[in-house]
Amino acid sequence: MRTSWQERFADTSDVLISEQRRSTVIPVLDLAIGGNDFVTIAGPCAVENEFQLMATAQRVRRAGARVLRGGAFKPRSSPYSFQGLGRDGLRILARARKETGLAIVTEVMSECDVPLVAEYADILQIGSRSMENYSLLEAAARSGRPILLKRGLVATIADLLRSAQFVLQNGNTNVILCERGIRTFDTTLRNTFDAAGIALLKQITHLPVIADPSHASGHRELIAALARIGLAAGADGLIVEVHPDPDNAMSDGEQSLDFAAFDAMMAGLEPWLALRNKCLDGVISGALQVMEAVG
Amino acid sequence: MRTSWQERFADTSDVLISEQRRSTVIPVLDLAIGGNDFVTIAGPCAVENEFQLMATAQRVRRAGARVLRGGAFKPRSSPYSFQGLGRDGLRILARARKETGLAIVTEVMSECDVPLVAEYADILQIGSRSMENYSLLEAAARSGRPILLKRGLVATIADLLRSAQFVLQNGNTNVILCERGIRTFDTTLRNTFDAAGIALLKQITHLPVIADPSHASGHRELIAALARIGLAAGADGLIVEVHPDPDNAMSDGEQSLDFAAFDAMMAGLEPWLALRNKCLDGVISGALQVMEAVG
Amino acid sequence: MRTSWQERFADTSDVLISEQRRSTVIPVLDLAIGGNDFVTIAGPCAVENEFQLMATAQRVRRAGARVLRGGAFKPRSSPYSFQGLGRDGLRILARARKETGLAIVTEVMSECDVPLVAEYADILQIGSRSMENYSLLEAAARSGRPILLKRGLVATIADLLRSAQFVLQNGNTNVILCERGIRTFDTTLRNTFDAAGIALLKQITHLPVIADPSHASGHRELIAALARIGLAAGADGLIVEVHPDPDNAMSDGEQSLDFAAFDAMMAGLEPWLALRNKCLDGVISGALQVMEAVG
Amino acid sequence: MRTSWQERFADTSDVLISEQRRSTVIPVLDLAIGGNDFVTIAGPCAVENEFQLMATAQRVRRAGARVLRGGAFKPRSSPYSFQGLGRDGLRILARARKETGLAIVTEVMSECDVPLVAEYADILQIGSRSMENYSLLEAAARSGRPILLKRGLVATIADLLRSAQFVLQNGNTNVILCERGIRTFDTTLRNTFDAAGIALLKQITHLPVIADPSHASGHRELIAALARIGLAAGADGLIVEVHPDPDNAMSDGEQSLDFAAFDAMMAGLEPWLALRNKCLDGVISGALQVMEAVG
Repeated sequence: MRTSWQERFADTSDVLISEQRRSTVIPVLDLAIGGNDFVTIAGPCAVENEFQLMATAQRVRRAGARVLRGGAFKPRSSPYSFQGLGRDGLRILARARKETGLAIVTEVMSECDVPLVAEYADILQIGSRSMENYSLLEAAARSGRPILLKRGLVATIADLLRSAQFVLQNGNTNVILCERGIRTFDTTLRNTFDAAGIALLKQITHLPVIADPSHASGHRELIAALARIGLAAGADGLIVEVHPDPDNAMSDGEQSLDFAAFDAMMAGLEPWLALRNKCLDGVISGALQVMEAVG
Repeated sequence: MRTSWQERFADTSDVLISEQRRSTVIPVLDLAIGGNDFVTIAGPCAVENEFQLMATAQRVRRAGARVLRGGAFKPRSSPYSFQGLGRDGLRILARARKETGLAIVTEVMSECDVPLVAEYADILQIGSRSMENYSLLEAAARSGRPILLKRGLVATIADLLRSAQFVLQNGNTNVILCERGIRTFDTTLRNTFDAAGIALLKQITHLPVIADPSHASGHRELIAALARIGLAAGADGLIVEVHPDPDNAMSDGEQSLDFAAFDAMMAGLEPWLALRNKCLDGVISGALQVMEAVG
Repeated sequence: MRTSWQERFADTSDVLISEQRRSTVIPVLDLAIGGNDFVTIAGPCAVENEFQLMATAQRVRRAGARVLRGGAFKPRSSPYSFQGLGRDGLRILARARKETGLAIVTEVMSECDVPLVAEYADILQIGSRSMENYSLLEAAARSGRPILLKRGLVATIADLLRSAQFVLQNGNTNVILCERGIRTFDTTLRNTFDAAGIALLKQITHLPVIADPSHASGHRELIAALARIGLAAGADGLIVEVHPDPDNAMSDGEQSLDFAAFDAMMAGLEPWLALRNKCLDGVISGALQVMEAVG
Repeated sequence: MRTSWQERFADTSDVLISEQRRSTVIPVLDLAIGGNDFVTIAGPCAVENEFQLMATAQRVRRAGARVLRGGAFKPRSSPYSFQGLGRDGLRILARARKETGLAIVTEVMSECDVPLVAEYADILQIGSRSMENYSLLEAAARSGRPILLKRGLVATIADLLRSAQFVLQNGNTNVILCERGIRTFDTTLRNTFDAAGIALLKQITHLPVIADPSHASGHRELIAALARIGLAAGADGLIVEVHPDPDNAMSDGEQSLDFAAFDAMMAGLEPWLALRNKCLDGVISGALQVMEAVG
């Protein structure tokens, strides 16, 4: 990493690459997030009922996903939208894990819910709206669970690093950063996907970074392309919304893939993933280079 | 393409994919831009002198570039910056073409200069600051030369399509769109690279789209990553700033690669390019898919 | 109000001006917020100790403030910043009310704290970071206390109205909107003050609107000018940060006025306020006009 | 002015307030722009024909405008929009000046047109899209005419000062800055009016600053409010679009006032203007203060 980045982000130096730490690998069940595994997280925006979640879990696992997502407590983007099933949603997620072996990631929105959610989830998700909720970050950090930290809608890279640093300072080094699109003047898509931000985060931090093509685009027909982009940017994985019947989903249907589309996305990603893995394994050299030499 | 995009961009329907036109392929010397060729354009920000340009031209050609860039008339980003060599710069570009066989792209900034620049250049570049200069667009369109149309700093996708449509309406269908980063609240990098915008443009328009990792990032150590991202997004090529001695360049040195770094970037891109070509040739199917099925 | 605005904001029609409701006047102690009173809220960013708050309360009251602000629970903008005194801070605020007669506004950040904060505060502040925390909004609405709803950093006018509408739907019509600057590409000042947004909100909603020149500018030497701007835009009041010793404040010192500067601001505002009041009283006509005629 | 601003804008120090220069007053016919006069510039977006311009000129003069605006060469915001009458438009403007005594401001878009436009116009307008066209700025500066420099759509304050500095460096100190709204994520109105930017420019530069409520809002029913806001921010004048029949204007009708609305705006502004003038004349002290004391 170049000196100039080190100086720029000096106040969050614990998350930066250093001689002591080149990359953080986070064990979750049998996964190693941030290692050579490329981890696809998939599932519905919200846990709606047992049937919906079980069907989705089985299907995404078959297609290659390794972690199941699904909101039990939902940050409502509108006052009238679905709020989630709460504890019942967590129980359904636990059953899905038991049945499929998939790890579980779900959002925790309130400090008070951390113990409950941590009991069920393998990874705690901190949503975009909560990225700077330091009381919540502290409670989540202390739970000991790995944290999936989503970048805020108008968080700069420095803001994101500050929140990550705070989790580390509270004794939890298992932070996964997630780029999910930022808000800009161009509203053609739901957000502007900051793929270069992913590349930069991989160059300067030792933390795993994943891409969220669903929220970044807001349009299901762009998800496969954004998944490829995220992979090429150097991401360690993806988080994708999948629903048995997107047009009738209780939330985020417009940006959710149905099973067939998810299968197609995973199949289409396969040769790109094979190339990425060859690069990481050293079979091909230079093709995921960080170019420190030119720095 | 989905109906909703067609409706949204109905006033620029000439640039949209239709039954009549799936993709526009632009012949430039022996190249077919927008066809299966992935075209790398490389060269200095500005033509500084004959030695600088010749050395660069030979070296980038050897590394695989097919078009030489270099500004003769420079849009100064500061009042005190270098303005370019003007006609002398054009003559040097012409000699470089003669010697290397590379096609030439250079910016035209004033309506009055169109005939002069069109005499020397194979492709006329319309810069970001000029994207909505309709008098210039009209003159450039009527010159008959292919147009490399750079997206404005705060141009929405609709704004970009409107300018492209205007060129088509003036009788010139050879328009190459160029994504070069947009201005947002996050100033960590010089601009925010809208990779999803590239993917969308490839889904909805029949025009070639290229990516400019130099302006999009503003940092040379990120250029290789952004080139990969652009390729994965579906771009038809790249435009990259290369200089024999970036630290002493008259402009844009911070975002220019030296010869060794450009060689490394091209070598690193090679396996990704091979994969892209296999996808386009149908050897691998589905891996550059547009996912119309789910639309 | 023009039909086009009514259509645009149709999903939040309860907050729009209608035949039934031209303006909402909120009684707080002896004040009538949103009526002809122009209400200045002043006080420190955070309650630091009893001496600091009491000194500030007495001084701002003498200068003409009618409501005392002061954070007991602080939304930390950095993980290492001061978190507030919590319940002790609330007790100090209550003593300041008893001694000065000023009404109290303080932020509530967590659903669980609503009953506690509502016991002490005359007005509950919902901070920018919480504007879309619907669980918190619901709890705050149900407390029965008037709500000071700060616009989020990247909330559109529609987003702000949606949150306000949600409070109304939960049985609480006493909502005060607060413009405090939005995040844009220009970071010369801390935020971009959306004065036109205030004018629009006064044209289309029946709710009181106040301006926050401290957060909007982030620079104390601009606060007097932004206060005038807010008044001219039609705001019903101001919220200003005042501290006995801004250079040693625990938070937001750069945007806090000391006592002398607050006195000067209030004195300088006086003739503008007199003019505003003459307009509202009908002594002068047309000078705060909404221009419906031209709509 | 505080040292920190001086340091921040050190590279454009010629436009900053200094011991030598507190304020630049620009003589135009019998006006003194930037002195105590508050100058209202009014007129149509484009000169459409002689009748339209003459009728407008007479009416806006009667209502108190001192300068007539009207585009002869139009920067088309769309490829299909009206391009202006060119030299014929300039001749009509000259006749209007002769008949009404109003000074003339009109935009020059091309370097080559500077001599022609300077022959007719009292003030040359540099449009938003041209703010960084340094060749045009140089030619305009050398014409000797005062320059009305409109802020670019995404120009920071520093960018605007850089362009102004460049005009000064080319021997022309008669620069009038114009805030006309910037592009942000919130598209409720056409642009976001940066009123605090006006206040800042008045604090740190010695140049006159005017406000453009028409372009800043894009909605005619907000123009009167934005005019008041600009005045309260410390602007030295306004530029407002007025048209005999806005609904049938060839351009910008939505943001143009008809004669009656302009009369009403000017009448409504009158008491605010009287107050401003009392402040500037020292009859009232402190009410337009710059608060250097607290800096």
